[in-house]
Amino acid sequence: MICKMLNIKYPIIQAGMAGGPTTPELVAAVSNAGALGTLGAGYMSPKDIRNVLSQITKQTTAPFAVNLFLPQVYEKNEQQILNMQKYLNSYRKQLGIPEVSSVPDMRDVFEQQLNVVKEAGVKIVSFTFNKPSVSLIEKLHDSGITVIATATTVKEAKELELNGVDMIVAQGSEAGGHRGTFLDVEDEALIGTMALVPQIVDAVQCPVIAAGGIMDGRGLAAAFSLGASAVQLGTAFLTVYESGASEIHQSAILTSKDTDTKITQAFSGKSARGFKNEMMMNLESITGLPPYPIHHVLTSDIRKEAARQGNKEMVSIWAGQASALSKKQSAKDLVENLVRDCKNTISHTSTD
Amino acid sequence: MICKMLNIKYPIIQAGMAGGPTTPELVAAVSNAGALGTLGAGYMSPKDIRNVLSQITKQTTAPFAVNLFLPQVYEKNEQQILNMQKYLNSYRKQLGIPEVSSVPDMRDVFEQQLNVVKEAGVKIVSFTFNKPSVSLIEKLHDSGITVIATATTVKEAKELELNGVDMIVAQGSEAGGHRGTFLDVEDEALIGTMALVPQIVDAVQCPVIAAGGIMDGRGLAAAFSLGASAVQLGTAFLTVYESGASEIHQSAILTSKDTDTKITQAFSGKSARGFKNEMMMNLESITGLPPYPIHHVLTSDIRKEAARQGNKEMVSIWAGQASALSKKQSAKDLVENLVRDCKNTISHTSTD
Repeated sequence: MICKMLNIKYPIIQAGMAGGPTTPELVAAVSNAGALGTLGAGYMSPKDIRNVLSQITKQTTAPFAVNLFLPQVYEKNEQQILNMQKYLNSYRKQLGIPEVSSVPDMRDVFEQQLNVVKEAGVKIVSFTFNKPSVSLIEKLHDSGITVIATATTVKEAKELELNGVDMIVAQGSEAGGHRGTFLDVEDEALIGTMALVPQIVDAVQCPVIAAGGIMDGRGLAAAFSLGASAVQLGTAFLTVYESGASEIHQSAILTSKDTDTKITQAFSGKSARGFKNEMMMNLESITGLPPYPIHHVLTSDIRKEAARQGNKEMVSIWAGQASALSKKQSAKDLVENLVRDCKNTISHTSTD
Repeated sequence: MICKMLNIKYPIIQAGMAGGPTTPELVAAVSNAGALGTLGAGYMSPKDIRNVLSQITKQTTAPFAVNLFLPQVYEKNEQQILNMQKYLNSYRKQLGIPEVSSVPDMRDVFEQQLNVVKEAGVKIVSFTFNKPSVSLIEKLHDSGITVIATATTVKEAKELELNGVDMIVAQGSEAGGHRGTFLDVEDEALIGTMALVPQIVDAVQCPVIAAGGIMDGRGLAAAFSLGASAVQLGTAFLTVYESGASEIHQSAILTSKDTDTKITQAFSGKSARGFKNEMMMNLESITGLPPYPIHHVLTSDIRKEAARQGNKEMVSIWAGQASALSKKQSAKDLVENLVRDCKNTISHTSTD
């Protein structure tokens, strides 16, 4: 059913990871393989989104999605920001990049991002970090766009359905990257995929997409058993050939172990799961970090340069709790292996 | 295979929850239903264990297990204990029970507990909170006893296998009650079942028993898909008719929602998952709680009396993250429903 709704062959979604990993090549390769590629456009300018969408549509005629971050209310405390800039300048010095002592200009470009996506004829949009309003969803539906949104609790899932989303990503606590939590307290909404998916499936009528800790055919079969209609994988797609994740990000994932990740607000002011490192631990010891998205912007130049220099202690390296199951392969091979191994798993699973 | 090793019909284990829930009636009913009942004997005196084992064997001829806590090293700081007693006296006053201003006599009775279990002819023993030594496992094997132990990380699973355990419980972060973590830091070993099980399955040769967030046939099918040979359920058995869990414990579970639990050291000095309440929050704000098992003993009289009085704010109410899926039914019906729904789930799961 969900495949029909999304016009795809396999109920597999590549998560819309913002910040570089979702190259046009990755999105196109995933969609060409019969799954759903997603451009993680949350941090992109409207202009960049337009360019990348045109690159994607040159490489695939299959459907793909765009993920956007919904606007949220936050407080801007100038003194707090200036103090943080001062603190962060020690990192900038170490990396040899210009120090910054100003308050960044924060403009919300959500409306413009969305207009570009609509103009480009994208037919599937997924949202995180908040609840799309009834009127927003109606407008998208009027444009023939299918709307996906992320929940981390039953309460969030119910509210998303009430507003009219077409399908819900149930993001378990295993998931890498940012938590999609928008109603409950971030650190109280860390429910494991095994517990979260059946509870959300029971609470809503629309299709549920399981996310968090799913890396291979076993994970797919498990998610479908729990009642999910599809799966969404992020970490597994970070190490495919078409991924735009940095060298240090990919090598950290490929050599990781189960206990390497941690939920932290250190890099962006919003809870996210990534590998423990020096900058994470140092920033966690500071009370009163600026809120998301301010703190995300403040640390961005440092993380970007650290990634370029191959310095894994000063960069956010997002990954889920099953990252150790990752492999270096093409996106097409990953999708095909997922489908084949899932089928084998199901046909070999018995209670005897 | 695991059913043959344990001489049971269904690969379902009722977790050995200490402190009262695992009545002789529960253990016997679960085993009579074809699953494996487990007496949670960790906190019991050797004499009580002997009595209860004789009650169980009067009610079933099927195999059942006994769960014991392995001894662990801890520091006893008398001043810290006396300070905590003083703090806890405000709770004792509220409940109308005698105040306590002494250091409890802590004797380790593990050897005596184990002797009673062996003498009673129990054929399956499961351990938590530590790693059974090679010599302990060899002695148990010489007595024809199958040894199960709990791991919360891949590293712990590998060490358990190296020492010779016969099968390993992979305890995901969703699980209710105490964490079995013994090597890694408790709060860094919170890996979701979906992520943990396949990683442990890949790391060891022996059968893996999935635990954490499993409440119904969907959870069973998911666990088997992930490569588990069996499942262990705790919370689901707390609300069956034969359960010894208190009225407030059962009603809290039956009316719970997904976000109600939290990992806390507040009640015992060791990380455990239970429902948030006043005493948990108050004790969490105190730095430097006495270590387990001291703090467990210090708070025991309060929790016992609060449960008796139906006061849910001063008692530890352990439960997993899928507690909202619980039902009031007999142990036999729970086991039969698990098996039937798991089979139905598997036969209806497909990738199309």
